[in-house]
Parts: sequence; structure tokens; C-alpha cells
Amino acid sequence: MMTIDIQRWAVKIEYDGTGLVGWQRQKEGLSVQQILEEAAEKLCNNNFKVSSITAGRTDSGVHAIGQVAHLDFPAHMSLTAKKICDGLNHYMKPHAIAILQAAPVDLEWSARFTATQRKYKYVILNRSSRPALNENYVWHVRKPLDIDKMYRAAQRLLGLHDFTSYRATACQAHSPIRELDRFDIYKEGDLIYFIPEARSFLHHQVRNMVGTLKMIGDGYWPEEQAYTILQAKDRKAAGIKAPATGLFLTEVIYPIDPFQ
Amino acid sequence: MMTIDIQRWAVKIEYDGTGLVGWQRQKEGLSVQQILEEAAEKLCNNNFKVSSITAGRTDSGVHAIGQVAHLDFPAHMSLTAKKICDGLNHYMKPHAIAILQAAPVDLEWSARFTATQRKYKYVILNRSSRPALNENYVWHVRKPLDIDKMYRAAQRLLGLHDFTSYRATACQAHSPIRELDRFDIYKEGDLIYFIPEARSFLHHQVRNMVGTLKMIGDGYWPEEQAYTILQAKDRKAAGIKAPATGLFLTEVIYPIDPFQ
Repeated sequence: MMTIDIQRWAVKIEYDGTGLVGWQRQKEGLSVQQILEEAAEKLCNNNFKVSSITAGRTDSGVHAIGQVAHLDFPAHMSLTAKKICDGLNHYMKPHAIAILQAAPVDLEWSARFTATQRKYKYVILNRSSRPALNENYVWHVRKPLDIDKMYRAAQRLLGLHDFTSYRATACQAHSPIRELDRFDIYKEGDLIYFIPEARSFLHHQVRNMVGTLKMIGDGYWPEEQAYTILQAKDRKAAGIKAPATGLFLTEVIYPIDPFQ
Repeated sequence: MMTIDIQRWAVKIEYDGTGLVGWQRQKEGLSVQQILEEAAEKLCNNNFKVSSITAGRTDSGVHAIGQVAHLDFPAHMSLTAKKICDGLNHYMKPHAIAILQAAPVDLEWSARFTATQRKYKYVILNRSSRPALNENYVWHVRKPLDIDKMYRAAQRLLGLHDFTSYRATACQAHSPIRELDRFDIYKEGDLIYFIPEARSFLHHQVRNMVGTLKMIGDGYWPEEQAYTILQAKDRKAAGIKAPATGLFLTEVIYPIDPFQ
């Protein structure tokens, strides 16, 4: 068996999730992972199988502004950050995926396991008229939402909890315990932004939390319901799952930023 | 000849200009005007010919966040703002055009001639990687642009001037004299925003000014060139025309806001 020296690279990625099956490879449909890995293999003249590990396995239709992944390339290729960015961006055309930055990292560094914080943004367009601009980047909610109620309800979810009620039934994480560090909610014009931050999130956790908060904001549920649902530790207790279109993975934080 | 009482309505419109031929009806291709007027006629059960006048005749590919137009409907229809918004939005589907607000106005009121100020936003994505998100909403410029130089150059264009150098050769305005009131330029992350404000603009004036400023920002021209070009009063003196994708008509101001 031949072994070759490996150089690991971290990449920061932006993508439009519309029409993609999400981060992870699926039998049917195009994934970010497949497009990225195939581009990386082309960069290696298809002489080397490149696999990637990501910080956030986003779902179908979910977007990313600051996704981070790592890829292992043969060290003898003498790649540079510019060659990786330009090369991957070239081979990923015409897909709506762009490498923003690349940086060499140690083999012990993992885009997934070294990450200490993940930040998402969820956008609701709250007005009666449907969106003409940014249709794929918002959840359109006609009924006026009460920001203050949603904000107070969200603050009750902060801290270390069993988030069983807010995770997908298909979630594969060993433990439903997560620590939610921040959950800002604010309005700019017709847009409402939800900004949750945690070391990590369960499958569908952000969309399930936003869906429940929306049902509090429109008056269907009282403000306390978000916490009552948390305590129930039962997925069936929670509200609707917010659609994928409004969700963006915005930032992944590491003890030392590899891109600085 | 039968005459009927008319009720004029002002409407605030958002649209995605991608794939449209612009505001004005053309022999070939779909315009905002055609889609809007046909929807208005359907609202009248096709018994009445509705024509519209707009505040800003945006070009092909140009977007609007706060376009304003007026439409004349038969008074006997007893329309309400809600009926107009919901009805037009229904009949304009699936086009990326949305009526945000509607308000009754006097017959002397004109979306075009009563307007006292127009505000545009031009967005440049200034980074090496191509856009994955918002591809149709920015001009992608790879070379780093000097904001301070562009800002100072833009301030030299403020005031009452003959803008011949910055208007399209096909511009039909009687006079090339316009008064540019404000021209803010600022950066947020990788995005550079150009915000010009005037009572009115000449054909392609915003895109021609931004194109010239970009050539100053990337060092091709010195800072003084924007003013030198203005003084030349010759379209051939100016730089490139910025592409339509980055341009948004954001706001039209009237002595009394009809939508308040």
C-alpha cells in the first residue's frame, strides 16, 4: 500500500441551497459535498480521491454565507490558498457555490470537531405581499408577528437543555443535550432576523425553534409555550418546522481562526 | 362617447428585474408595465383599459424595492387598498413583481410628475470569489476598490450640472441639466453601496456614474476624472456603464406621502 503525505486545507464556503439536496451526498440529487469533492478531484487531475468534512451539514434548500469544511490534498501538489480558491471555484461552475477563503491546517484540525461555535441566521419576511426580491432567501409570513413576545420566548431556551422536543425524529446525535448561548431576534423593515448561536445544534433544531416562535409571535400560542415544549422532551409537543429557504449558516468559530 | 368617473390609485411596487425588459412596454419581451396593466385589466374583468404611469422607467434587469406608479380605475368599482394589493398580486403571479401598498390619490397627482426625489441603490460585490448568493443583485468586481477615492470623486458631482457625459446617447430628456443632491458610498463586508439621490435622473445616469467611479476606485483613473468627465459634456469621455444587475430603485419621495 502506497502512502503519500497529505496537506489539509480549510475552506470557507458560500452557497445558495436552492435546488440542492443539502450538504451531504445523497443517492438522488446534487449536494454541496459532491460538487465540492468532484471539483477538488479535478484540481488533482482525478489522480486522488478527495473527501471533505464540514462544520454544518445543512439541509436541502438551506444556504450558507460562512460554511467551513476541510479537504485533504497530496502535499506534493504545493497548493496555495489562491490556487485552491480559483481552482475549486472554476471547477464548481456553474453551481451557486463559491470558495471565499482557503488556509492550510494541521491534520489534527477538523472543520467539524475543532469548531467551538456555530451561528445561524433565519429570515422571515413579515408582510402581506409575497416577496418579489429574495424569494428563495426568506420565509414569507403574512400575519404580523410580535417581536417582543418571540424574543422573550427565545430567551427562555438559552442555556443547557435536553432539546428532544426541537430535534428531528431522524436526528442521529447521541445526546439531545445542547447549550444554546444566544438567540437574538430583531426587525429591519419587513424583515425579522433570528440569530441563534451554540457550540452545535441538533438536526432541524433551528428550524423547529423558529417555527414554534412564529406560532407564539402570531398569537396562536402564549409566550410560555416555547419553554413548556422544551420541558415536554417530546418532538410532537413542538410547533411547525420553519421552511429551509429562510435559513443561513453564517459563521463557524474556531479557537484560532484559520483564515486570519 | 361615454365618460365614466375615474379613481386614481398610487401603488408601491417591488420587483426583480432579472429576465424582464424593464419598466416600459417593448415589442419583444415582458415588461413590468405590461404585467401590471394586464393584471389591472383582469381586476376590471377586462371591461376597462388600464394604463399606468411610473416614477422611474427602470431598464432591463434593474430591480425595484420602492417603485411607485399610478393606475386609473373606474370609480364605480369601489376598490379598496386591500382589494388592489391582493387582486394585482394574484393576477401578476408567477412574475416576481409585488404590490406592497396602494392608496387613492387625486386625478392631479402623478407618480411621475408629483415626485420630488428619487433614491437608488447600486451594489458592488468586491471580492475575488464570484457570488454564490444574490448573483442577480450585485455587480461582481474582483479588483479591490478604494472607497475613499470613489466617495470623494462622487462628491464632486453633487449640485446642478449638465450631465451630458453621464447620460445615454439615446436619452430622450429635453435637458441634460440635473441636480444631484446626495451620493453616499459605504462598505459593509464585501459589499459596496452607492446611494445617489436627485429629483430625477437621466437615462443610464446612475449606471454611468457608478461605472466611472469603479474605474477610479480600481486605480485606472485619478480621483479628479469624475469631474473632468462631467465638464467634458461628452458621453464618449465617460467610463463604462455599470451592469443592470446591481441597481435598485429604492424610494420615491412626494410632497405628501400617499401611503402614510
